[in-house]
Amino acid sequence: MCLLSSVLGSGGSNGTGPNILLLLMDDSITCLTYFYFLLFSLQMGWGDLGIFGEPSRETPNIDKMASEGILFTDFYTANPLCSPSRAALLTGRLPIRNGFYTTNSHARNAYTPQEIMGGIPDSEILLPELLKKSGYFSKIIGKWHLGHRPQYHPLRHGFDEWFGSPNCHFGPYDNKDRPNIPVYRDWDMIGRYFEEFTIDHKTGEANLTQIYLQEALNFINKQADSHQPFFLYWSIDATHAPVYASHPFLGTSRRGLYGDAVREIDFSIGQILELLKQKGIAKDTFVFFTSDNGAALISAPRQGGSNGPFLCGKQTTFEGGIRVPGIAWWPGHIAAGQVSYQLGNIMDLFTTSLSLAGQDIPRDRTIDGIDLTSVIIQGKEIERPIFYYRGNELMAVRLGPHKAHYWTWSNSWEELSQGINFCPGQNITGVTTHTQVEHSFNPLLFHLGRDPGEKYPISVLSTEYEDVITRISYVVQQHKNSMVPGEPQLNVCDLAVMNWSPNGCEKLGKCLNPPQSAPWKCIWPH
Amino acid sequence: MCLLSSVLGSGGSNGTGPNILLLLMDDSITCLTYFYFLLFSLQMGWGDLGIFGEPSRETPNIDKMASEGILFTDFYTANPLCSPSRAALLTGRLPIRNGFYTTNSHARNAYTPQEIMGGIPDSEILLPELLKKSGYFSKIIGKWHLGHRPQYHPLRHGFDEWFGSPNCHFGPYDNKDRPNIPVYRDWDMIGRYFEEFTIDHKTGEANLTQIYLQEALNFINKQADSHQPFFLYWSIDATHAPVYASHPFLGTSRRGLYGDAVREIDFSIGQILELLKQKGIAKDTFVFFTSDNGAALISAPRQGGSNGPFLCGKQTTFEGGIRVPGIAWWPGHIAAGQVSYQLGNIMDLFTTSLSLAGQDIPRDRTIDGIDLTSVIIQGKEIERPIFYYRGNELMAVRLGPHKAHYWTWSNSWEELSQGINFCPGQNITGVTTHTQVEHSFNPLLFHLGRDPGEKYPISVLSTEYEDVITRISYVVQQHKNSMVPGEPQLNVCDLAVMNWSPNGCEKLGKCLNPPQSAPWKCIWPH
Repeated sequence: MCLLSSVLGSGGSNGTGPNILLLLMDDSITCLTYFYFLLFSLQMGWGDLGIFGEPSRETPNIDKMASEGILFTDFYTANPLCSPSRAALLTGRLPIRNGFYTTNSHARNAYTPQEIMGGIPDSEILLPELLKKSGYFSKIIGKWHLGHRPQYHPLRHGFDEWFGSPNCHFGPYDNKDRPNIPVYRDWDMIGRYFEEFTIDHKTGEANLTQIYLQEALNFINKQADSHQPFFLYWSIDATHAPVYASHPFLGTSRRGLYGDAVREIDFSIGQILELLKQKGIAKDTFVFFTSDNGAALISAPRQGGSNGPFLCGKQTTFEGGIRVPGIAWWPGHIAAGQVSYQLGNIMDLFTTSLSLAGQDIPRDRTIDGIDLTSVIIQGKEIERPIFYYRGNELMAVRLGPHKAHYWTWSNSWEELSQGINFCPGQNITGVTTHTQVEHSFNPLLFHLGRDPGEKYPISVLSTEYEDVITRISYVVQQHKNSMVPGEPQLNVCDLAVMNWSPNGCEKLGKCLNPPQSAPWKCIWPH
Repeated sequence: MCLLSSVLGSGGSNGTGPNILLLLMDDSITCLTYFYFLLFSLQMGWGDLGIFGEPSRETPNIDKMASEGILFTDFYTANPLCSPSRAALLTGRLPIRNGFYTTNSHARNAYTPQEIMGGIPDSEILLPELLKKSGYFSKIIGKWHLGHRPQYHPLRHGFDEWFGSPNCHFGPYDNKDRPNIPVYRDWDMIGRYFEEFTIDHKTGEANLTQIYLQEALNFINKQADSHQPFFLYWSIDATHAPVYASHPFLGTSRRGLYGDAVREIDFSIGQILELLKQKGIAKDTFVFFTSDNGAALISAPRQGGSNGPFLCGKQTTFEGGIRVPGIAWWPGHIAAGQVSYQLGNIMDLFTTSLSLAGQDIPRDRTIDGIDLTSVIIQGKEIERPIFYYRGNELMAVRLGPHKAHYWTWSNSWEELSQGINFCPGQNITGVTTHTQVEHSFNPLLFHLGRDPGEKYPISVLSTEYEDVITRISYVVQQHKNSMVPGEPQLNVCDLAVMNWSPNGCEKLGKCLNPPQSAPWKCIWPH
């Protein structure tokens, strides 16, 4: 078994680090664990967990995970949207560096729909590529979202196994204008959503989470028996809209369909952690649970979650868009029942995982994630800023308890007039603006301890304002001066690149004919 | 020691019930416990507790209390304002019955400022009056708020001891237009706020919570030694504005001054529960923690708390005004770590306390509180409605997960234009209205499970609407048909009745001369 000293990074690449299990929720949850790493990275809002005050308290397993580990109150994702956050997680770098942004318009969220040309560049080094050097076997279960063209396939970027889909489970499409999203096992597609992998739009029934759970349990069983360290990235796409749950969970939540999905995820996480205990590898597995962005309030109430007391949701750089649940669990190494106020970021999971695996971070590039090992093991707190980007623009910066907005925008008046609202029921004059408003001369400043909901800008005439803005401006200037943006990957779209004929389609007789290539500059409305 | 059977109400008035400790927070917390009853009734919002998701998680003692007992997710006060809620708690009856409302204008919140003529009528039977028959010794520590004229003195209404004030700690007044609020020990005043009991308006420093804590500890010590059952109603006025904390707590919270006050209250509750354990009477004391109304968002961020995901705050009949923390604690009788979804109400503490003391409720009047004993001991759930009143109007009704608004109002346009806002940052068209809007024909209907923030009215065309409204309308009709309002106590004001010369002022040389009596109809703007 491992010694803590080797866990803390003194060792080399001899495979003595813990398993790593990352549980990433879609529209807000992640989990990194073990002598193995397990990352739950899902899609839920900060306020969707009982432990964070969701009134129905329907996440007993995740709440228990927190009570057995560390709850991060101030954990952030790298972007208010899915693909860029996931790219940041796996590269330890801001989307503006790894290319997961657009320059087509100013400050626009972009991701990887089927028609996107881009994806994760070969020049980026992904976490599983590095862990492989330490003897780790890596699997992604669920949504990849870093590009679906052959060169972006996760098995080309360090993962050894994949079960899941390259894009969101949107649809069903008619397979004419757009094909349905494929589901892969490793290199080959094995079916498509709404075809072999059914989702009943009317009832919301789908057994996908059960399938993804079973994949995780099988993988853990196999790895535990083989005694090879693993990195499992459990990145299922529930609770992303269209929301679904399997039959035993449908109608069981006090919160409706969205709550059914949350309950099924919570159940699944309970099963996974229980198996780690049963196999005797809980003490060898570092598990982290987080989310790729805040809850999508636009889909509420039937399809959207809760960001608790925070402002707005997914797509915005207010706290509701970026602050996400964070829980670290590693029995025997992490003391139970802790709360950490450390400003954490999903990118830190890259650096921390490498540290746990006894590796240094790459020295030839800027890594934005910091090593949280001392925070997790020794309860330290490290001062560091949080940068809130929307596309190619630095919208806001957090330092200590303060957050300065250099730009504010919820969405356009035009979208709002169509009923698209990222801040339903919330409206703060001069803050949740419907035009892009620059505040660089006098940034809007909030104290997130006194005012977690970003409702009360601090007076520009106060000494607090002067002191804090001076410090934040320095950090911003440093950041901007040293910033070398990556080649934007999310600028060009083309119907020809869609999932018409994924690898393996021939065997299934499910290849479709793509249209002629006709690239265009993707339009990102928000 | 007591047997559970006697605890559950089979016994007579032989003093074998538990102590009762009610901890009532001001602007949102209450606590009932022991073979004694201890009620913490304070002023905090639902979202102010770590266990309910306050991001700074600065209430470890209250959170621990919840983890050792039952957390109520759906606990309500009887009114969105202090005096009526407190009158309802002690009488088990809605303010519309016990007289704590006004008919001067429609649907107006009213309370007991210094100039109020009214108070708790002699015809009302208060909890300590009844507990006395079971041998209980009762003390109120903190704010009374049920009228300050001699006939309304708490020692005339069942309490055996009092240390605290009759009204809110507003001021400082100049002792000409208005006297400062007196602090009483039992029958006599012993000083006044801002005079003998200082509150530094600039720094927010006051050692009042420490004084109230010491009173509680002394009382518990004395009662434990005497083996006489007690009812302690710890009804301190922190965190009501003007917010204060003692020197050791000032500047210690991540949340600013309000957080300092919360931390001091949390510390105090930890001390009280610890003493119960030390004295060996924890198993004999039923403790309940709740609040008199939701957080006063109008005072935020420096002086106001959080209502978590709920809409608006104090003064309103949205969830933020009425839903409050509820925690029951009784080691050895209540299993640890429970969550109850029971719709509870502060008035239930009246009925439950009587039940625990082995007494029946009065049969000559309507009692609105229900007996929660089976909920607390056996985990049962009882269907019952929650009625949301604002003054003389039934504004809304909750039944199961649904809430129907018959009237909506936040506050007037006139007040809003003056910067008075009970829903800062929140604005839901047709819901947070600034005129009083009647919806009796088609009540606004919400599902509080799917939509705890009351943002998405359910379509009147849905079958859900039709089914639910039919059931709620029946309950409303029953309620209205049997309603016999009490004589309104909060209609008439007179400067002559202020705290000019409270009992005991002679000894202190602090009697002031009242002006001529000149009663007027009190003006209640919201």
